[in-house]
Amino acid sequence: MNRIEIFDSTLRDGAQGEGIVFSLQDKINIIKILDDFGIDFIEAGNPSSNPKDFEFFEKLRSVPVKNSKIVAFGSTRRKGEKAEDDEALCKLALCNAEYVTIFGKSWLLHVNEIIKTTPEENLDMIKSSVEFLKSRGKHIFFDAEHFFDGFKDNPDYALTVIKTAEKAGAERIILCDTNGGTLPDEVAEITKKAVESVSVPVGIHPHNDISCAEANCLSAVKAGATHIQGTFIGFGERCGNANLSSVMATLKFKLGYNLSESADMSALTKTARHIAEISNITLNDGLAYVGKSAFSHKGGMHIDGVAKNPRSFEHISPELVGNKRNFLISEVGGRSVILSKIKQIAPEYDKDSVEVRSIMELLKNMEYRGYQYEAAEASFELLVKNYLGLMNMFFDIVFFKTIGETSDDKQAPASAMIKVRVDGKTQIGADEGDGPVNAIDKAMRSALKVFYPQIEELRLVDYKVRVVDGNAATAAMVRVLIETTDGEDVWTTVGASTDIIGASVTALADSMRYKLMKDSEKHNKR
Amino acid sequence: MNRIEIFDSTLRDGAQGEGIVFSLQDKINIIKILDDFGIDFIEAGNPSSNPKDFEFFEKLRSVPVKNSKIVAFGSTRRKGEKAEDDEALCKLALCNAEYVTIFGKSWLLHVNEIIKTTPEENLDMIKSSVEFLKSRGKHIFFDAEHFFDGFKDNPDYALTVIKTAEKAGAERIILCDTNGGTLPDEVAEITKKAVESVSVPVGIHPHNDISCAEANCLSAVKAGATHIQGTFIGFGERCGNANLSSVMATLKFKLGYNLSESADMSALTKTARHIAEISNITLNDGLAYVGKSAFSHKGGMHIDGVAKNPRSFEHISPELVGNKRNFLISEVGGRSVILSKIKQIAPEYDKDSVEVRSIMELLKNMEYRGYQYEAAEASFELLVKNYLGLMNMFFDIVFFKTIGETSDDKQAPASAMIKVRVDGKTQIGADEGDGPVNAIDKAMRSALKVFYPQIEELRLVDYKVRVVDGNAATAAMVRVLIETTDGEDVWTTVGASTDIIGASVTALADSMRYKLMKDSEKHNKR
Repeated sequence: MNRIEIFDSTLRDGAQGEGIVFSLQDKINIIKILDDFGIDFIEAGNPSSNPKDFEFFEKLRSVPVKNSKIVAFGSTRRKGEKAEDDEALCKLALCNAEYVTIFGKSWLLHVNEIIKTTPEENLDMIKSSVEFLKSRGKHIFFDAEHFFDGFKDNPDYALTVIKTAEKAGAERIILCDTNGGTLPDEVAEITKKAVESVSVPVGIHPHNDISCAEANCLSAVKAGATHIQGTFIGFGERCGNANLSSVMATLKFKLGYNLSESADMSALTKTARHIAEISNITLNDGLAYVGKSAFSHKGGMHIDGVAKNPRSFEHISPELVGNKRNFLISEVGGRSVILSKIKQIAPEYDKDSVEVRSIMELLKNMEYRGYQYEAAEASFELLVKNYLGLMNMFFDIVFFKTIGETSDDKQAPASAMIKVRVDGKTQIGADEGDGPVNAIDKAMRSALKVFYPQIEELRLVDYKVRVVDGNAATAAMVRVLIETTDGEDVWTTVGASTDIIGASVTALADSMRYKLMKDSEKHNKR
Repeated sequence: MNRIEIFDSTLRDGAQGEGIVFSLQDKINIIKILDDFGIDFIEAGNPSSNPKDFEFFEKLRSVPVKNSKIVAFGSTRRKGEKAEDDEALCKLALCNAEYVTIFGKSWLLHVNEIIKTTPEENLDMIKSSVEFLKSRGKHIFFDAEHFFDGFKDNPDYALTVIKTAEKAGAERIILCDTNGGTLPDEVAEITKKAVESVSVPVGIHPHNDISCAEANCLSAVKAGATHIQGTFIGFGERCGNANLSSVMATLKFKLGYNLSESADMSALTKTARHIAEISNITLNDGLAYVGKSAFSHKGGMHIDGVAKNPRSFEHISPELVGNKRNFLISEVGGRSVILSKIKQIAPEYDKDSVEVRSIMELLKNMEYRGYQYEAAEASFELLVKNYLGLMNMFFDIVFFKTIGETSDDKQAPASAMIKVRVDGKTQIGADEGDGPVNAIDKAMRSALKVFYPQIEELRLVDYKVRVVDGNAATAAMVRVLIETTDGEDVWTTVGASTDIIGASVTALADSMRYKLMKDSEKHNKR
């Protein structure tokens, strides 16, 4: 069988990650996204751990899924109790999920020291729990917790555990590297033994504590596993789970395995970013396949090579995973990148022209002052066009003032006024807002729309603050990045200052100027 | 030989990472840190690429290294030129580094399409370049660029390339997975062939484009490689390089290899964090071994298990790599963590007490409002003590006002006033600063020191702003974390609001209250 099943645990094991907190609506949104993408199984939580999660499974009745199966998670029964008397198992039996994962111990250290029972009782806990849930109509996946550590300690017992679960009716046996310390070679060897010992499909659930979670998935698949458990973008307890976005792309594009027919790999990047957004974490720029930098070229020779033949420095085509190629603007990239960017703007300049050299100097100077243009191409374009005399700046800021006050719930905590100048005429705008940056954003719009009504079309998509020099604390240099849209395009601008308001005003002004430049160029083309 | 050489390229390949910009002083600091740690080889840059880097190698004469060798990086000669006439090679020959890495092509695609020469000329470029540098007294490491892709395309040519480099005098042959798409199994197989073909030590230089850079290092070592190239915390071109902090720990603690005798593994975490700080990047919390979350336990059962026996959920002891265990405060962690934290504060409460239940409710409510206490234990302690009536809050903030203005270089762009109340007495403080947050920090101190002179001992170590809900842009909820020290302890406090100033004032006030509480408790003990 050349088909690998994908099981996503973002909402269960992912929620164990440091800093991860999901609201009810977050969970529902993530289920929709995973279902749209075409994940086979979505582990949605543990309905037996608290009433809130039980209710959540009830709510899921009204959330239609088209591609995925929803899975509930829980534990085998407590020691010294009957399965049918175990409150948690009863909740699992009652919950609104056709599929249930239950985990049980396969490492004697845990049997002896953590749950403190006998090896025989542990086997019976597994047997009776699986049988009970099966009798209530559930499909059961058995998570053999610490399987690899257990196998290294006592292979016979570990294999007996999974055979017991299979015999009791489990439809999948999942080998968990719960502590995340197992090496890829060990995974291959031990998975092979497990696959030989049972007839049902075997899966793997690795953790990333030695940076090998993804490699361990590949090792397991090579040894006969056909089911992968992880989280879509890799977060989870401690160092996280296997990153499914990487594993799926490697299985599909490097090894030729089939995933679900509904899995849309060209939506991989978009899906990863969407989940990061809802989970409120910053996706690692260097994340394989889906990271912002995954196909970004900075070295001059790399850029030159990719321009000649993308295969020379790209292991796959970014389009396959819905990502895109990017040549970075920076000193290291060499003059050729900057030149190519300048050439897009003003084709008449070549690499030896005085203007290009001066722009390089200017960039270096701006970088020193805390600016970075890699993520802010709109600001770069304005800088170049203004420097080459290709545009005017549309407006100046004469002065601004912001006032922040203790919020008393009756009035906005901040207000701002700003004076702008356009062709010698000045205009003052003022407004209040949720904070000084929000207030000055609104004040600027109210002043500028007198001259440029299209400013009202602008909507801010994202506002990011980065402390550039953490050591200086509240007096530190900050860099502000603002992402703006007019419904048609999206662009990013930058400002840097020791004053967060000053940096924000710079980035906001660039954002508005970019819009005006874009509109005036469109107008001139007509 | 059971000894693996470690070669760090943070300053060369790492500098190709998106967003990485090193100043001269940054580079010198990183060399000192890597040398202190005990890295074998430090690749410091490419002295032939620009005059600034050449000067940097000159400056290194005055930077003493005790454990490491400094390596310069460059390319083989240009086609159609003599090695001794090649300007870049001459600079490498002249530069202040005993060791030089030069890279050459081992994939015919690159020979034909990128440098556009013949396979024979490419071999001669390698031969003559290595011979020339050797004749100038350098020790030469040869980087076989794209070796794995080259081998898959034409094994004979790829092996001829490395044999040519060896014959010409290269002392190490480094197999580069330049595009980062090679699978661990392929690395094992191909490295074995390379090791059989040459007599000098073989190294590997992987990239992380399929999340397998670290696993590929382990594969290569198993196949006979004895030299690993990467960057200390993994950043580099596109998805980055092999993360040496992970690879070293796995080689040493999981596989029993020896590293340099001077390598101090208990400084691993500290070193990784220090390099992240200088490189101005946020270390991924989930980074194996050294991440903030690498030994953080959030699930209730995990916490319970680790309390009974750390081996139950930790693959190695955090002390071995200088990291530490942490039980996280959160809903998921269950009442037991919160209870253990509360018990530290007030031993008389147990898990069923009304107070503990109410604190859980309060925490949930605060999390909903944007607060998170995982990283802000000082704020958590204040919340609990205040709730249990164990302390007063030392002061109230009656109101504050901040004014931000266009900076004209003559005066500070922001000023603030704040009125505080202590035991019914009020005091107003005012000051100016680099931004409104800096100004209000100073104003608060000037008001509070009238009552509490020890406030002047406080120094802010770090100030972090996190936009919690990116979609609302400038009106988004922000969370501010402030790290403070009094020279004795370090603590972190949190504030959250849609107003960045309001959130900062909350975190600053908590920070000052924590100091006052600490001092009063010390006083009471006397």
